[in-house]
Amino acid sequence: MSDAKRRRLEVPPAKVLGRDEYLAKLREVLCPMVKPAAMYNSLVGGITTDQELMAIPIHDHALVRGHAIFDTCSIVGGRLYRVDIHLDRHMDSAERARIPLPFGSTVQECKDQMRSIIAQTVVTSGLRDGGVRFYTSVGPGTFNLTPEGCKSAFYVVVLRPEELPVKESDLDGIREVTVDMPLKPPLLASTKTNNYMLNALTSMKARDSGGQFGILLDGDGCIAESSVLCCVFVTEDKRLITPNFDKILAGTTARKVLDLGGRLVAEGKLAAVSQEQIPQAVAKRCVEMLLCGGDSHIIPVTHWDGHPVGSGSVGPITKKLIKLVHEDAKSGDGDHYELCYP
Amino acid sequence: MSDAKRRRLEVPPAKVLGRDEYLAKLREVLCPMVKPAAMYNSLVGGITTDQELMAIPIHDHALVRGHAIFDTCSIVGGRLYRVDIHLDRHMDSAERARIPLPFGSTVQECKDQMRSIIAQTVVTSGLRDGGVRFYTSVGPGTFNLTPEGCKSAFYVVVLRPEELPVKESDLDGIREVTVDMPLKPPLLASTKTNNYMLNALTSMKARDSGGQFGILLDGDGCIAESSVLCCVFVTEDKRLITPNFDKILAGTTARKVLDLGGRLVAEGKLAAVSQEQIPQAVAKRCVEMLLCGGDSHIIPVTHWDGHPVGSGSVGPITKKLIKLVHEDAKSGDGDHYELCYP
Repeated sequence: MSDAKRRRLEVPPAKVLGRDEYLAKLREVLCPMVKPAAMYNSLVGGITTDQELMAIPIHDHALVRGHAIFDTCSIVGGRLYRVDIHLDRHMDSAERARIPLPFGSTVQECKDQMRSIIAQTVVTSGLRDGGVRFYTSVGPGTFNLTPEGCKSAFYVVVLRPEELPVKESDLDGIREVTVDMPLKPPLLASTKTNNYMLNALTSMKARDSGGQFGILLDGDGCIAESSVLCCVFVTEDKRLITPNFDKILAGTTARKVLDLGGRLVAEGKLAAVSQEQIPQAVAKRCVEMLLCGGDSHIIPVTHWDGHPVGSGSVGPITKKLIKLVHEDAKSGDGDHYELCYP
Repeated sequence: MSDAKRRRLEVPPAKVLGRDEYLAKLREVLCPMVKPAAMYNSLVGGITTDQELMAIPIHDHALVRGHAIFDTCSIVGGRLYRVDIHLDRHMDSAERARIPLPFGSTVQECKDQMRSIIAQTVVTSGLRDGGVRFYTSVGPGTFNLTPEGCKSAFYVVVLRPEELPVKESDLDGIREVTVDMPLKPPLLASTKTNNYMLNALTSMKARDSGGQFGILLDGDGCIAESSVLCCVFVTEDKRLITPNFDKILAGTTARKVLDLGGRLVAEGKLAAVSQEQIPQAVAKRCVEMLLCGGDSHIIPVTHWDGHPVGSGSVGPITKKLIKLVHEDAKSGDGDHYELCYP
């Protein structure tokens, strides 16, 4: 090699930090950020409330390969709300994603252990209301592509209501826009993984045009989903409709809304409840539109692509559903666990 | 709510760990795992060599939303090899992924700063040979969907040769299989994000059937790529061919192989070098096949879907390319930076 090609890279001396200095700096930078009230980490088999310890190893495959799944549940009045439906979906996601279970030798044992850990972490947090996010990852071990040599990990964080990604602040209705963004392949779309870059970009693109979460269409021009929420419509003839789950994630809140919609059918307030293919043109003629997710968050959409949905204000069925969902979360129909706080 | 529905969740008392106990346990569990020789973390503005501090915050969007990009470069004989081509791709990925730059006010400033940090981290590691992996993430701050409220982060790890995901151990040729797995949508496929679950599952599926990385086809039945490697073929009439980059990541090693293939054309050893659509049937008639990635890793494929490729042993062009790539990495044609070790 000629000397001309021997480019030297002159760099300032590296700043190597000792443990205490590193953690102190990290604590400082995390200070203005979200502060989980507690975090469980299966790698250490325990819970921390130190912000600077709430972390995952740099070689955890959740980061290295996006080889992780997550789910959520709610804390309502000192009870865990709908943890089991989320854990069931989590176990399904683990199987599709081929992530070795971090606990037990059966799916049921793993699920029981996860429920218990979630409860312990919530109780440690002291929060009576808020949300839980939990992650199961191929875990740390290597920078390879496959899980061999890694140790599956389970992480749980407990968040205050104001720190949850979907909040209650939009009950007066939001404006939404259709976003041109490709859907994920079905395997990825139907598994609740952390491969959510397209979801994030969908929301960012919606915000560019005055929307918030964005409305996605499938390849046939039918409604798919929003970035992290399901889309539900009320037709002129009083049918409550939402897309099939074949190309999208099986929304737990959408399933609750369908259940509660059934009650409104019984009361004569709705003609029918249906999961079906919804061409965009059909959706655009609907009189009410809502997005739902996060167990109890029903977000009315009053304007879509610059036009009012129905009257342009929150419709009666949407209002009724918000009320029913909140009642369900507060009073419970069995999908609750009382927690024993000290 | 009736008492029957008040299910109590009796759980063992939570194990809350203090800082020292937490870090000691973490150190213990990480002990048998991969050990980066050094890690830079922009959040603290410095480098650590403590394994238990090599981590990212639990609310970093690299984990929360897969909103992160990565790239790599090589350390060869005390020089950084091909860091600029990787940084250029990294900057392109950041733009597509809409990740705010963690440094500087221009792309060039950011790139210069990243190169300098990579060099500092490598020098701190003391390694003269190995690999670098670097990540740019939307960073920590919230559990929301979009980057608002987050602080972009840049993480660098330096790995020993035996810790790299693609190793030199397969020079005698490997067996590969075609894998039926959907491609990512082009936006995701052409951006080097950490949304790599499908890549991991592709390799796992290949291993199920006696392969290693797996060969993927596009929707037209043409060769796409391998899970984390590009596919290159030599036709019977001595043409070196590899697929276009329109549906796949623009492989930096594939580009190097195309360059070096040009030399073999000049020497009369190849008839032509071409990037083109390659129907599977055309690929199956080829006399040599190789996978490439990680700057200098050329992996001959001697058997594909149970049949020998060409003679079933490593062919002359592949051997020549391995030699040329290694020479390029060792002696350098200008895409090297000499590092100043203390």
